[in-house]
Formats: sequence, C-alpha cells, structure tokens
Amino acid sequence: MIIILKKQADERKVEALKQEMISQGLSIHESEGANTRLLGLIGDTSVVDLRHIMANEIVENVKRIQEPYKKANRKFHPEDSVIKVGNVKIGGGHFAVIGGPCSIESKEQMVEVAEKVKEAGALLLRGGAFKPRTSPYSFQGLHGDGLKLLLEAKKATGLPVVTEIMDASHLPLFEDVDLIQVGTRNMQNFELLKELGKINKPILLKRGMASTIEEWLMSAEYIMAGGNENVILCERGIRTYETSMRNTLDLSAIPMIKKKSHLPVIVDPSHATGIRDMVEPMSLAAVAAGADGLMIEVHNDPARALCDGPQSLTPEAFAHLMDKVTKMREFFETL
Amino acid sequence: MIIILKKQADERKVEALKQEMISQGLSIHESEGANTRLLGLIGDTSVVDLRHIMANEIVENVKRIQEPYKKANRKFHPEDSVIKVGNVKIGGGHFAVIGGPCSIESKEQMVEVAEKVKEAGALLLRGGAFKPRTSPYSFQGLHGDGLKLLLEAKKATGLPVVTEIMDASHLPLFEDVDLIQVGTRNMQNFELLKELGKINKPILLKRGMASTIEEWLMSAEYIMAGGNENVILCERGIRTYETSMRNTLDLSAIPMIKKKSHLPVIVDPSHATGIRDMVEPMSLAAVAAGADGLMIEVHNDPARALCDGPQSLTPEAFAHLMDKVTKMREFFETL
Amino acid sequence: MIIILKKQADERKVEALKQEMISQGLSIHESEGANTRLLGLIGDTSVVDLRHIMANEIVENVKRIQEPYKKANRKFHPEDSVIKVGNVKIGGGHFAVIGGPCSIESKEQMVEVAEKVKEAGALLLRGGAFKPRTSPYSFQGLHGDGLKLLLEAKKATGLPVVTEIMDASHLPLFEDVDLIQVGTRNMQNFELLKELGKINKPILLKRGMASTIEEWLMSAEYIMAGGNENVILCERGIRTYETSMRNTLDLSAIPMIKKKSHLPVIVDPSHATGIRDMVEPMSLAAVAAGADGLMIEVHNDPARALCDGPQSLTPEAFAHLMDKVTKMREFFETL
Amino acid sequence: MIIILKKQADERKVEALKQEMISQGLSIHESEGANTRLLGLIGDTSVVDLRHIMANEIVENVKRIQEPYKKANRKFHPEDSVIKVGNVKIGGGHFAVIGGPCSIESKEQMVEVAEKVKEAGALLLRGGAFKPRTSPYSFQGLHGDGLKLLLEAKKATGLPVVTEIMDASHLPLFEDVDLIQVGTRNMQNFELLKELGKINKPILLKRGMASTIEEWLMSAEYIMAGGNENVILCERGIRTYETSMRNTLDLSAIPMIKKKSHLPVIVDPSHATGIRDMVEPMSLAAVAAGADGLMIEVHNDPARALCDGPQSLTPEAFAHLMDKVTKMREFFETL
Repeated sequence: MIIILKKQADERKVEALKQEMISQGLSIHESEGANTRLLGLIGDTSVVDLRHIMANEIVENVKRIQEPYKKANRKFHPEDSVIKVGNVKIGGGHFAVIGGPCSIESKEQMVEVAEKVKEAGALLLRGGAFKPRTSPYSFQGLHGDGLKLLLEAKKATGLPVVTEIMDASHLPLFEDVDLIQVGTRNMQNFELLKELGKINKPILLKRGMASTIEEWLMSAEYIMAGGNENVILCERGIRTYETSMRNTLDLSAIPMIKKKSHLPVIVDPSHATGIRDMVEPMSLAAVAAGADGLMIEVHNDPARALCDGPQSLTPEAFAHLMDKVTKMREFFETL
Repeated sequence: MIIILKKQADERKVEALKQEMISQGLSIHESEGANTRLLGLIGDTSVVDLRHIMANEIVENVKRIQEPYKKANRKFHPEDSVIKVGNVKIGGGHFAVIGGPCSIESKEQMVEVAEKVKEAGALLLRGGAFKPRTSPYSFQGLHGDGLKLLLEAKKATGLPVVTEIMDASHLPLFEDVDLIQVGTRNMQNFELLKELGKINKPILLKRGMASTIEEWLMSAEYIMAGGNENVILCERGIRTYETSMRNTLDLSAIPMIKKKSHLPVIVDPSHATGIRDMVEPMSLAAVAAGADGLMIEVHNDPARALCDGPQSLTPEAFAHLMDKVTKMREFFETL
Repeated sequence: MIIILKKQADERKVEALKQEMISQGLSIHESEGANTRLLGLIGDTSVVDLRHIMANEIVENVKRIQEPYKKANRKFHPEDSVIKVGNVKIGGGHFAVIGGPCSIESKEQMVEVAEKVKEAGALLLRGGAFKPRTSPYSFQGLHGDGLKLLLEAKKATGLPVVTEIMDASHLPLFEDVDLIQVGTRNMQNFELLKELGKINKPILLKRGMASTIEEWLMSAEYIMAGGNENVILCERGIRTYETSMRNTLDLSAIPMIKKKSHLPVIVDPSHATGIRDMVEPMSLAAVAAGADGLMIEVHNDPARALCDGPQSLTPEAFAHLMDKVTKMREFFETL
Repeated sequence: MIIILKKQADERKVEALKQEMISQGLSIHESEGANTRLLGLIGDTSVVDLRHIMANEIVENVKRIQEPYKKANRKFHPEDSVIKVGNVKIGGGHFAVIGGPCSIESKEQMVEVAEKVKEAGALLLRGGAFKPRTSPYSFQGLHGDGLKLLLEAKKATGLPVVTEIMDASHLPLFEDVDLIQVGTRNMQNFELLKELGKINKPILLKRGMASTIEEWLMSAEYIMAGGNENVILCERGIRTYETSMRNTLDLSAIPMIKKKSHLPVIVDPSHATGIRDMVEPMSLAAVAAGADGLMIEVHNDPARALCDGPQSLTPEAFAHLMDKVTKMREFFETL
C-alpha cells in the first residue's frame, strides 16, 4: 500500500500516521520526489482500511498494491481448489453441469425434469423454493414445501441438489441440501455470508449484478474467513446499458478469476442472457473460456413455467446441449 | 401491455394465450398490420408476469405500457405522501436533514456529534451499529451496544434516530429506533423487505447500487404491499464506470421519482461522492433539484473515524452547510 | 410503432397527429382501454423519428415494435452475408484470423511480423498507421509512411491488409488497403461513415465503447444506406464498471447479432482484455460462440512495442493459438 | 508513477527498464518489502506511456500518481480560466446561458427563437446545422444553409453563436461562428481535436457519452497541446443502465472538474434528460453545484421540431426558467 502525502503536510501529523501504521505491524519505506512524498507500507495490508487512511487530512491519495483478500487469493494457495458436492467434484479439472427448473412447482415437474437432466448427463439438480422476484405480485416460490419436493427428486435420482437461500433464518430447512446458492441480490448480504461461513456445506456464490471481481472475491472471503472454504463462484451476467438481453455475460471473468483465485468458477448462461436460443452458444463459449461447470435452466413445459420460462430449455434441447458440451470437453482434453 | 405475436403463430396457441389472459381478468384488443400482429391487454396488468408471456413460443416480444407498481404509483395517489418520523414530517413540502456519524463508536462520540448536529439544525440523528463492509477484516459495527449508545443520544437530544438494519432477525433490537434504514446492498433483500412491510415504522429505502428507478419503486412496493406505506426513498449514488469518485450521484432521479411516485425522496451526498469537499455542492444541488431532505455524515474527528472518514464533515463544516441549506430553502420558497 | 396517448388528449390534436402519420404512408389502428388509448402505426416505421412523436404534448409514450434498421436486418435478408476481402471470404461459414501489430513501427517489424502471422495461418494482416491515443503525448502512428510499410508487407506476403482510418480526408491514402477499419471511438463519426458508404471497399466496423447492439447496427446501416453493403462487425469489449481489465468482452453480442443481422461479426480479444494471458481463452470462447473471425495483436518484441504491448502476443504464442483455433474450427465442423 | 515488479524479476531486465526510464529524464527511487519490489519514477511522468511499461514481462503492475494532463491541470494553473466568446465571458465567476433550437430549420424559426432567448436573458445563441443522428434516415441538418441562417440570427440579435462541427473539413464554414461545439460522439475524434488546437476560436467540448472525467480532460489537453487554450467543458449526461431518461446527468462532475482543472464547465440538461419537465430542476441543480453556464434547447413549436422536440422548452418556459436562474445566481452571490 502506497500513501501519497499532500505537499507541506504537517510533520507531526505525518509522524502520527507512521506510528499508527507501525502499531498495526507494518513497516514503512519513505520516498520523496520533486512533487510527491510517498509512504510505502510493508507487511499484511489486507487488514488496513484504505478509506480510513484517506480520511487523514495530510493524505492526498492511497493506492493498494496487494489484494485485500487472503483465503481466496491464489498467491497464498497456488493449487486449484476442488470442491466436493455430495460425491461430485468441481474444480481442478473436474467439470459438472447443474440442470433443473428455475422454480420448483410440483412433484411431477421436479421428478420428470430431474430424471431427464440426469439421463442427459447433469451431475447436480437445481430448483428454487425461495425466489427473489422484482415484483411482490410475482410467484415467490413454494418455500418449505418446495424444498421437500426437491429432496424427493434427490432421493429418486441420487443427484445432489442445489437451491437458493434468501435468509439465514431458513438454514434449518437446508440440512439435506448439498450445495447452497447465494443469489446475485444477496452477494453482499453480509449477515447471510457470515452464517454460511459457520457451516461446512459448499456454497455457490453468484456474482452480484454490478459487482467487481474484487468485490465478488471479498464476499467469498467473508464465507472463508468464517471457516467454510468450500466456495464455488458463479458468473451470471452483469448489468450494463445493453437492453437486448437480460444481462451481459462476462466470460472474461473466468480467466481473471483463475489468475486471482484458486476457487472454481461456473457459468449460468440462462440467467445471463434470459433468452433460450442464446444458452447453447454461451454454454460452449463458457467451456472454451475455462469454466469448471455450467448451471442451466430446464423445464418440462417452458411456456407454463411459473418463473423464467423464456430462458428455460426443454429436456430435449438440454440433452442436445449436453451432448455438445461433453464432446467439447473431450476435445479440449486433447487440445 | 402489448404482446407482439410471431408471424404464422399457431392459431390454437394464440387462442390458448388469449384465454389465459382473460382468465386473469384482462380483456384483449387485437390489431394486425402487414408485418405484425398485436394483442393489447386491457385491465390491471401489474400482476401479469411479462417474462411468463415471453416464454410462449408464439410470442416475439412483450412491451409494458402501465407501470408494474401500484401503491407507490403517483397515478393512483396524486398527492405527495408526508411521512412522520417521531414528530418530524418529511415530504409534501416538509424538508429534514439527518446528520450523524457513519458508525457509532463510543458514548462520547455519539453524544458530542448528536448535540452538535442538533444545534446546527438537523432534525434527525443517524449512526450505524450494523455496518455492511466489503471486507470481513474491516470494523463491522458495535451491534446491540451501538444501538444502546444511539438511543442514549436520542434521549439526550430528543432527536428521532435513523439506523441501518442488515437482517430481519435483528428487528427486536430496533424497537425504539424511529426510522429503519435499508442499505443499498439490501434493496433487493426481499425477505427483509417483507418483514418491514409487517411493522408500521417508517422505512428509509436506499437505492440499490445499480438499480433502475423502476426496481427501486418495486422494492418500495414490497414494503407497501405488506401494509407499511411509510417509505422514504434515498438516492445515494449509482455505480458507473467513473473512478474518480465513489459513486455517481443521480440527482435527476429526484424529478423522475416525483413524476412517478408520491413518496418522499432524500439524498445522501456523503456516500454518493465519498469525498468531503463534494458534500456541500452536492447538498445544495440536491435541494435545488427538489429533494425532501439530506442525510449527511458528521464526525467529531474524521481522521479517526472507524468508517468512511474521508466523506465525513466536522461539526463546524456541517453547521456551515446547514446555514447555507436553510437559507437556500428559504430562498426557494420565494422563487 | 405504438403511440400511447395521454388521458384527455385534445381530439383535434389527436386528429392532426394521425394525419401526420398517414401523410408518411402509414396506416393507423386505434385501441382504447380503461386507462390507455393507443395508436398502432402500420407500415415502414424505420423512417419515423420516435422522439419527434414524443415531443407532441398529447403523447405519453412511444414504443418501437419493428427494428429501425433495414439493410442490416436479417428479416429482410435471411441469408448470411459473405464479405470478400481480397481473395479472403468472411461470414456464412468462412472464418478468418487477422494478425499483426497494434502500430506499424518499422519495415523490419512489419515484414517480420507479417511473415510470422502468415506462416501461423492468419489470412489477413493488420497494422495501425493512424493511432487514436487518449493522450496527445503518446505515439500517434507513422501515418502515410506507416501505410507504405504496411503495403510493402502486403506485397511481401500476399496477405490482404487491414488498417484504421481516423478521418475521411485520409481516404486517398487507403487506396490499396483491402479492409478499412473504423475504430471504437469513430463508430458514430457519421461524416466518416457517410464517406465510407460511397466507396466499395469492405469496412470493419468496431463496436463503440459504450454502444448498444442497435446503435452498432444503425452505424452499419449508415454505410449500407450509402451503397456500400460490405460491412464486417467487430466486437472489441464494452465499457463497464469492472477495473481489472481494459474492457468487458461481450461475447453474447455474437449470437444476438446473428439473430438480428446477416452481417459477419469477428472478435478482437486483444483490445477487449488488454492482457496477453487472456487472449487465448477469449479467442477460443469467441470461436465457440460463433464468431466469423478473430483479430489478434502480434508483436515481435512486445516489451518494446510503441503501443499496446501488454496485450500483444509474440509470434510463437500466436502460432500456438492459431494451432488451437484451427483444431477447434475443425472440431466444430463435426459437432 | 510506481512500477511494481514481479517477484524474481531478472536483474538485467530490471536494470534495462531503469535505464529506459532514466533516459526519459526521470529519476528512480527503489523500495523493497517482503512481498513487493517497487520502482518509484520521479519527474514529469505525463509523457510516460503506462501501458508500454505494463508490456514488460518483469512488471506486475503500474500505478499513476500524477495526472497525465498538464495544460488542463489546476495544479499548474491555480486560477480559474475565463474564456471569452465574442464579448461574453465564461468561467471565473462569469456565468452564461446558451439558448436556441436543437437544429436550425428555417429563417423564421431561427430569428424568432433568437429574439426570444435574447429577451429572456440568454447571452449566446445555439443552433445545429450538422446533426449527428443515430439513424441515417433521420433529418441530418441544413449544413451550410443552416449556418447562414444562424449567422443571420447573430446579425439580427448581436448574440454570439454556438454550433457543432462534425468534421475538420467543414472548418472554413465556421469562420464567423463564435464558439465551436465538439459533440459527445466526437469527444475522442482526435483528428478533429488536433485541427481545433490550431485555431484560436473557443471550443465547447462535450463529455463523451461514456467518458471518464480523466479522458474528458485528456481530450481538452489535445486541443490545448496544439496551442488553443480556449476550452469550455460541457457535461451532458453519461450512459448508464437507467432507461427512464435519455442519459444520467452527472452533476458531481462539476465540483470534480473544478478540483482537477481550471477550465470552465457548463451543463446541458436538455440532452442529459431528454425530457422537457426535467430541464428546470436540473438547471437549478447545476447552478447550485457550481456550473459556469447552461445550454438549453428552446423551440418555438416543440411538437414540430425536426429534432429533439421532447426536450425543447417553449420560449415562454425558457423565459420562466431564466427568471429563476437569474434570481438564483443573485442569491448565490449573497450565500
């Protein structure tokens, strides 16, 4: 961390600032040019609050050199993390597809879709029981009853299940869930992240709608700092000015995450685009970019889906996509 | 709502879609051009899920004509809402300034700042006990102990108090809080919004970091649909590509909100800019744009603030600002 | 196009508006609900100025149903366009890689890089003589002298060449250039687009830094409306709030363009990411997403490049990438 | 400028980099921590190309400490610049309103509007003859004939005139124009900026639709580096994800520009919002934020305007606004 001091900074205040930094275990390296005087902070600066230093009247600017995350940082953990969900591995060369409906609607729907996605090669089953909807007048999910249907589909197919949590108080209902999803709107629901840091179930952390990659890793750090290092990241599109699609899928986040972190990262092309026809090309592109998995919405009758029908694949289209994804993964192993 | 059908749409499927809409209480007006066939839906379309219709294979596009919010909509409530916080009124010509520190740190700090902001003319006192911080290693607030200090300052000064809630389970601690703030990261924490809809305390709903004005009003609608119509909106800057400031303050949101909604809207220039020197010009601009109030961070010793020091005013600078704001409000009454 | 009228609109003004629309060759279909009265315009609305109608005091809103572009619209030209650059075809299944340095620096550099990229399988050669640099103090390119060096490299290798134009007055210098590039900052330099519409050389139209897909197609329409239908689109990253990379590569633009337009679209991962290590994964992802080509920066000595060294590949890395791209294209033909 | 070296960087390459920097007239201050080794560059770094250094394989990152602009930088020119347009001063306490139609349509329109805006207190007259329109099918302006009408209105009223240039080749037509506007789409049309740097007429430089404040100042620097220091900046709204308005007016740019630069900055609320009713509140807010002027669209018959009618004020509404603006300026002088 580099502190750029204002010209003619009061020498006593500079001294006080230096002592404050030293008392946090850092050492200081000074440097002075014609127009600038710098203090370089040496040591573990991840605990230093940049804006606290900015508040000091003698400070003109502060620049961070080291990343503010530690547990999620590849520098301190060079090997890829492999996260186990039930008996499925994700990361470090292990690739998995999660399939299933946006929301759990009925037993028939869940069991039918579950069997079809398993048959097509999905290794995990998704289904939402608690649905974050922009409008209070939209279908909000079946809640506890929905989770029961999801667990029945798990029993029927043997697939580990993934579902979204919206509030820490619901955690007792998630005991048999294999992978707990934190949605885009809750990526910085820090109270929820702290609770998830205390359990040892894997967490699927979706990127916030307008989160930087650093903020996303800091949210992973919240969970990991609490003791739960089983975090899988999920890119699901970010908000831009473009209006022809739901979000803008940021596939370049994949190689960037791989550079900065050891955590696995999967891609959700269904929510990213919001358009059925775009799911296949974006899935293949995600594989090519190095994703560790995909999360795809599948519905037995998209036109009647209670949620996100326009982006859901039929089981047939999903099987078709899985065939391509599988061949592509094999091809990439030879590349 | 206008449904644009695909060319050569299967007539039976068109009929089924029309029946589905009619069964929701809507009537239908058809229109056919050389290249396009439209279904106009007439009635209360706020309950219609646009994306559900989009999922239908015969549909090319859907456009909403009416706003999806009702309780927050000025069309159905032409008069400005006036919200009472303690004995302070906000909205409909009533203007109020909220002052206080970003985070509650000690009794001395709270009491000193509270007395100073009251003296300067603030009508409400702010102070954070639960702090949403990007890093798990940053100061997270004093929690319950902080709220106690805030309530002591309330007792000492008589000012109603505002503080942020981060999880619905903390609600019992907020019994004596006068105005409960929902922060930018929780604007779409729908479980929290639903709980706040059940109480009858006023809620200060900050705009999400990258929320559209419509999404913001839909979040207000969540609280109002639950029965609590005491919502005050707070613009606090949005995320853009600009890096020289913390956020981009969107003052044009004020006249737009006034057009679309009857709810009061205040402005937080401290968080929006993150820079002390910009608080005054942006406060005056907010008043000129028609804001119903301001929320300003004030700290007795900004360089030692545990949070957001760079944007905090000293009590002296705040008094100076209040003087200008008061004169400006008086001037505007003559304009 | 749908015009939503205000309640209680003056009947004479409604009549006048209808007559105005009819005089533009459109017919009108009226529709009236409880809260809304609509005028549907039927006919070629691409020439109707939406904001002109919005200006009418009796109008509440206007929604476009048909796209405002015609020549670039797939609806009126269902087959993929194939654009010929020299003897190289792009689009409609024809794939081409453009390689070469960001800026032309010397004869040795150009000839060396040109031979290396040809050997590796590039079908076109790039090199910038006119460089749009953010700073007036940065290297601005060799201008006419640079173009001469590029044409020498063309002669030496037989590769058709691509280079950027920054002002219509430079056109005479571009006579032997095979593909003229319009850079991201000039995508809406309409005077330049109009001049390029008058020639019959192919144009490589980069997406504006913050352009919507519709605006991009409208800029293509400018060139095509002038008579030059040889337009190739190039996605090169858009501006978002993310700061870890130069831009955010929007690969979902590829399937979206394919849906809306018949024009070929290629991808420039070098400018999009600005980071050498990200060029390969993003190139492969672009191929998987359906791109018709790639444009890659290659420099014989990136550390000494006068421009954009951090994103340039060495000829060896480029050959390695080309090998993968070629195998991947072959694989995709079997998929 | 701080260069952060990679761990285990080759010592000879570090030496070569240091020599390269020294040869540019910089001196170097080294600093080494447990995890990081830094080179601090001391001297005039505005000529150093940050990305050139980034391209060096031994470099992990580079951070700029000093701004890359010099002529536009307040540090080297602490007094406000006052720009003279005809006999009107702008900046340094001098405030001016520019009024007039979006596009010049006829003699009657120009003369009528010109007289009305003068009467209401505008000090300059605007009118577009070359119109940058998104669609090639929209009205493109009257070009040379339009300029003649504008100059007639100048003669009739004595008001200095402002109009947009779209291509340097049109400069001869602008001889009698008093203030030449560079539009948002041409803010980085560097060939045009260079030509404008060679003349000594004042330039009104609009902010690019998605430009950072630094990029905007760098474009001013282009003109100033050429020798023309008469630059007035104009904030006109930036592109964000918000769809209810045309752009998002960034009033916080005003105090930020005032901090970084000595150049005057005015605001165009008409283009920023695109909505007539929002022009007044945003104009008053701009004055409160410290703007040196306003540019307002006025049309004698907005519903018939050939361009941007929805945002144009009638002469009566403009007179009403001018009255408020004038009173507000007087009030601010007493504040």
